[in-house]
Amino acid sequence: MLHFDSDYMEGAAPAIMERLCNTNLEQTPGYGTDKYSNNARQLVRSAVGNHFADVHFLVGGTQTNASIIGALLRGAEAVVAAETGHISVHEAGAVEATGHKVITLPGKEGKLEADKLESYLHDFYEDDTWQHMALPALVYISFPTEFGTVYSLKELEAISSVCHRYSVKLFADGARLGYALAAKGCDVTIKDLYRLCDAFYIGGTKVGAMFGEVLVLKNKDLAPHFYTDSKRFGAMLAKGRLLGLQFETLFADDFKLYKECGRNGVEKAMELRAAFEAKGYRPAIDSHTNQQFFTLPNTVIDTIAKGATFEYWGPRGAESSTVRFVTNWATTSEAVAQLAALIP
Amino acid sequence: MLHFDSDYMEGAAPAIMERLCNTNLEQTPGYGTDKYSNNARQLVRSAVGNHFADVHFLVGGTQTNASIIGALLRGAEAVVAAETGHISVHEAGAVEATGHKVITLPGKEGKLEADKLESYLHDFYEDDTWQHMALPALVYISFPTEFGTVYSLKELEAISSVCHRYSVKLFADGARLGYALAAKGCDVTIKDLYRLCDAFYIGGTKVGAMFGEVLVLKNKDLAPHFYTDSKRFGAMLAKGRLLGLQFETLFADDFKLYKECGRNGVEKAMELRAAFEAKGYRPAIDSHTNQQFFTLPNTVIDTIAKGATFEYWGPRGAESSTVRFVTNWATTSEAVAQLAALIP
Amino acid sequence: MLHFDSDYMEGAAPAIMERLCNTNLEQTPGYGTDKYSNNARQLVRSAVGNHFADVHFLVGGTQTNASIIGALLRGAEAVVAAETGHISVHEAGAVEATGHKVITLPGKEGKLEADKLESYLHDFYEDDTWQHMALPALVYISFPTEFGTVYSLKELEAISSVCHRYSVKLFADGARLGYALAAKGCDVTIKDLYRLCDAFYIGGTKVGAMFGEVLVLKNKDLAPHFYTDSKRFGAMLAKGRLLGLQFETLFADDFKLYKECGRNGVEKAMELRAAFEAKGYRPAIDSHTNQQFFTLPNTVIDTIAKGATFEYWGPRGAESSTVRFVTNWATTSEAVAQLAALIP
Amino acid sequence: MLHFDSDYMEGAAPAIMERLCNTNLEQTPGYGTDKYSNNARQLVRSAVGNHFADVHFLVGGTQTNASIIGALLRGAEAVVAAETGHISVHEAGAVEATGHKVITLPGKEGKLEADKLESYLHDFYEDDTWQHMALPALVYISFPTEFGTVYSLKELEAISSVCHRYSVKLFADGARLGYALAAKGCDVTIKDLYRLCDAFYIGGTKVGAMFGEVLVLKNKDLAPHFYTDSKRFGAMLAKGRLLGLQFETLFADDFKLYKECGRNGVEKAMELRAAFEAKGYRPAIDSHTNQQFFTLPNTVIDTIAKGATFEYWGPRGAESSTVRFVTNWATTSEAVAQLAALIP
Repeated sequence: MLHFDSDYMEGAAPAIMERLCNTNLEQTPGYGTDKYSNNARQLVRSAVGNHFADVHFLVGGTQTNASIIGALLRGAEAVVAAETGHISVHEAGAVEATGHKVITLPGKEGKLEADKLESYLHDFYEDDTWQHMALPALVYISFPTEFGTVYSLKELEAISSVCHRYSVKLFADGARLGYALAAKGCDVTIKDLYRLCDAFYIGGTKVGAMFGEVLVLKNKDLAPHFYTDSKRFGAMLAKGRLLGLQFETLFADDFKLYKECGRNGVEKAMELRAAFEAKGYRPAIDSHTNQQFFTLPNTVIDTIAKGATFEYWGPRGAESSTVRFVTNWATTSEAVAQLAALIP
Repeated sequence: MLHFDSDYMEGAAPAIMERLCNTNLEQTPGYGTDKYSNNARQLVRSAVGNHFADVHFLVGGTQTNASIIGALLRGAEAVVAAETGHISVHEAGAVEATGHKVITLPGKEGKLEADKLESYLHDFYEDDTWQHMALPALVYISFPTEFGTVYSLKELEAISSVCHRYSVKLFADGARLGYALAAKGCDVTIKDLYRLCDAFYIGGTKVGAMFGEVLVLKNKDLAPHFYTDSKRFGAMLAKGRLLGLQFETLFADDFKLYKECGRNGVEKAMELRAAFEAKGYRPAIDSHTNQQFFTLPNTVIDTIAKGATFEYWGPRGAESSTVRFVTNWATTSEAVAQLAALIP
Repeated sequence: MLHFDSDYMEGAAPAIMERLCNTNLEQTPGYGTDKYSNNARQLVRSAVGNHFADVHFLVGGTQTNASIIGALLRGAEAVVAAETGHISVHEAGAVEATGHKVITLPGKEGKLEADKLESYLHDFYEDDTWQHMALPALVYISFPTEFGTVYSLKELEAISSVCHRYSVKLFADGARLGYALAAKGCDVTIKDLYRLCDAFYIGGTKVGAMFGEVLVLKNKDLAPHFYTDSKRFGAMLAKGRLLGLQFETLFADDFKLYKECGRNGVEKAMELRAAFEAKGYRPAIDSHTNQQFFTLPNTVIDTIAKGATFEYWGPRGAESSTVRFVTNWATTSEAVAQLAALIP
Repeated sequence: MLHFDSDYMEGAAPAIMERLCNTNLEQTPGYGTDKYSNNARQLVRSAVGNHFADVHFLVGGTQTNASIIGALLRGAEAVVAAETGHISVHEAGAVEATGHKVITLPGKEGKLEADKLESYLHDFYEDDTWQHMALPALVYISFPTEFGTVYSLKELEAISSVCHRYSVKLFADGARLGYALAAKGCDVTIKDLYRLCDAFYIGGTKVGAMFGEVLVLKNKDLAPHFYTDSKRFGAMLAKGRLLGLQFETLFADDFKLYKECGRNGVEKAMELRAAFEAKGYRPAIDSHTNQQFFTLPNTVIDTIAKGATFEYWGPRGAESSTVRFVTNWATTSEAVAQLAALIP
């Protein structure tokens, strides 16, 4: 049976496993103070081009989203996200558990649109009763989105610009960042993300790491005690070496391994897309990253399901449904070819 | 200048002021343990017809909503409300501050619809990933709604029935309850609310009291420590006499004064509606309670605004806007007649 | 039966009741935007001598403590209080409900001591693991304390100085502030409180008001959105006139009525103290405010209890117990004389 | 340089590393639904002797403590712990971040005493004002404690019995459980913990696992939605295989590897203790687990520090200090011998 359900089904890139084994009995100080963590932080600072960047290692995506969003907001402040944003839908109310509302706006294929965001913010302060409502203080975007789409540099700049005009911070969820950076046509770099966002994270769990996410804050002033805040959130791993070493391995030599992981996921996704297109099925969304969506006749879905697992995203009429196939750093061309052979 | 902005602009029904003055120097024990509070609780239990009803006095509406919703939910549980529900829009994220998500569904003139609610709940559990989402555990309705509309008994029974089928609790925000009960065509009684809801509150602030809301829980098991919970929420008034005595006054003789307050608000609202209709303006919403909405040409609005204040609810096209006029227990026919004279 | 249990047993100073009645049917805008509230805020700004002071009206003490402490703290930050501090003991975990720890230090008759506070803060940062602990970011003191004692100006300056040295904010709970300011030997003024604290509140509920507390922040930057934050906490009263008018009445003419209320409570407390001393009973604590503590033989307590109520504070050995008697703005010399007659 | 600072300095038991490598490219479903997790849960249920036991895998200790304590408490309920309890001191206010107070009682070498606990609970409900205080609803103990001590079965039964009498739940933090179970004289088994506690966790991070903790709830009713609750807390690992496989490896064959890990830590601790005793230094606390405390002359400490790291626990007079040495599953007799050679 083939598996294209999600990008967290395998473990870690072999180079990471090897180093984890080699250093397994090395004794290192805890909580991210080890040499591997220090080095990995340095690599991130170099990549974003600013040594004031404040870098933290966390274990998972929901944890990273909720702990930093909770740290950036105060009192009645709220975060604004697309209706389809991961924090709105699939994190069990983790942001709300930190006491803050998630305000949702309609998006377009997973993306917030700068003009819609601006209209919302403009109208918010036009309303005489705005002081009785949760205050928009942070914007959450996912990069790439839950639909595999990627903001262009121009779109990201526009959103960032609206945020600045309304004194709203900007945070990008990069759970699958590696697959965006490797996507055809993506003109946004990690340096751009650092420049245009107040905070973002570089996802590891889905992009070659065994687990782990790297949170990057523009500077330490944004959340001066985030180290302790993350402890309070239960998000600080005792054995910091595990995270530091993984990201050191992924980020060494100008993010070499991280880029390779991203590239493989995208290449295999493009092969998968081509396989469906060859059978006459157009993608439901024009995604150039590792998530591919197709609206297929239910009979076709049933046929493929005999040999592969993937995610069901809901019916489209009585006879068809939308489904999602996900590739990752470990997907092989052989697996894609086997999947292709299943498509009737 | 006439004022029809809201139903909290005046103080308290004269009978209440009189009793507050008469008992002002009486010494009573604190925190709702005084004889007036005990008696008022008894009057509520009689009205709902069940001596297991658990009755608490609180100071304001947002406080009541957030403290009881927070007490009824655990962990990842969430409350479901109409998009226009007061807790979704105008309470500054108070529910989220207790750690819980407000899930919104489209409503119809402020009302949740039983079939839409059922579809949502049904689909929720059909989704394979439901355990990764905030869990719908409570439904919030406002009675009457923010648009002045009132659920019929049949509608309320349908919602209650859906809630029971899906093990979801039901809570009704009765900030303006008195105006619903007095509305033409309202076939729901306080006994029905008690029977069909797990909790609801009888609003005082907007219906004759100086301030205060009466929270009614079906029984003590729903929130066994709510007395202490309300203290933790800063919602317990030291001088319990103030609340107990007000509600004793409103609820004596089978809710005599409370009903009178409701009736006056509704009567004056109907006079106001008739005044607009006489000038050819149809209500924007068919409200039979104390809130009346009209979509009027902006020139008409400007003319009325010279002699009266009211709430602006937003543009309807380039030339017209929707506005809201609110009456209450203290509104006089003279004031309505003066307003009528302002309508061009 | 005489009542000396607490200072919230009666209603409001007659001048307040009169004005509440006179303005009862006046229509005013809501949520503290009315003219009475504006005027009362102005009176407070004059009293503290700084027009940048940010003034908010709230309903009760626990509500005020929890909402401002919650607004001043972020993430892993905590508040430090004496073990006997009201927030540590008698507020049902309201501060913790905002997500923050209350760190307790031993006090002396209810007061924190500057040198003990300094030792604690010094040692905290000496500990290598301090970043794994809740961070002391705010100090809470009660003025007067729960034992009726009052910080001298020198003591308050010392605490304020320690706070500044360690970048810790200072907040004073003034639930009974009027009785401190009127106490013999109190050399602290409202101006001093404003100068030495980042925030404090002027208690109304226990000092002449029907209900209400006045929160004073040094400036708006401390909690920029506190108006909305208080709404989120359910602490914003719809009918702002009720609070504004009460405090306008108490604070007019250089806090004339507020001072009278304080003075009466203290005078009657001194009469009460003299009555016990005349019978040979020394106060358990040297309080010069409206709370008086005596350790009395249980037989004496039982005798007094036949004609008066008061609070039992716990046994002192097998034969004696400590009890508390509280006077207030409404206590009469006649009542104290009747109590005196009960002392065997 | 030798390292005896803590028990999280190395990685994982070799057998675990090997299996992680062997299964690295195996594709498994996420979030604990994989076969390894299912099997590990089954092994735990067998070990506690009850198939109703509800078993969850989490990543770290603070996370486990805070998420389950938060899930077990409602509203004004609080957890009671020893003053030295890890949740009171070293978790950055994580429990308070879930909204609940940590009430502390003095302990004895890290242990709560049943009679002191009973006195506290008895007195709590004797106090007339108890409904205004945070309500003790859960007791937290650490097993072994932060001082390496272990409750005897009799002590644990006494605490459990007090808890039951006062309707208070009991939770045991087993971060170092393996070292307690292997300790000389420990007469408590995992079955006893299950029988006497409502919840406890079996620590992996410090006892042979790369990371991870196994939370055991008496049954599913205690926290019916804990799976989703843990997601909301950011505590659910996407790649559930990582946790399931580790604990399957540790718990197979009647906890064979887990016991070996515990045994080695304790054996090496006893060797270390003997080394100090041979030089005339008596342990500061009679610990039979993997943490050993000595009060040593500062000159001795300085000498040892030239060749080994360990934790400084504070001064004891001007000339001596208490220090902690920790062994674990990976500590070798050689390392201990080298340490012994450093002791002057």
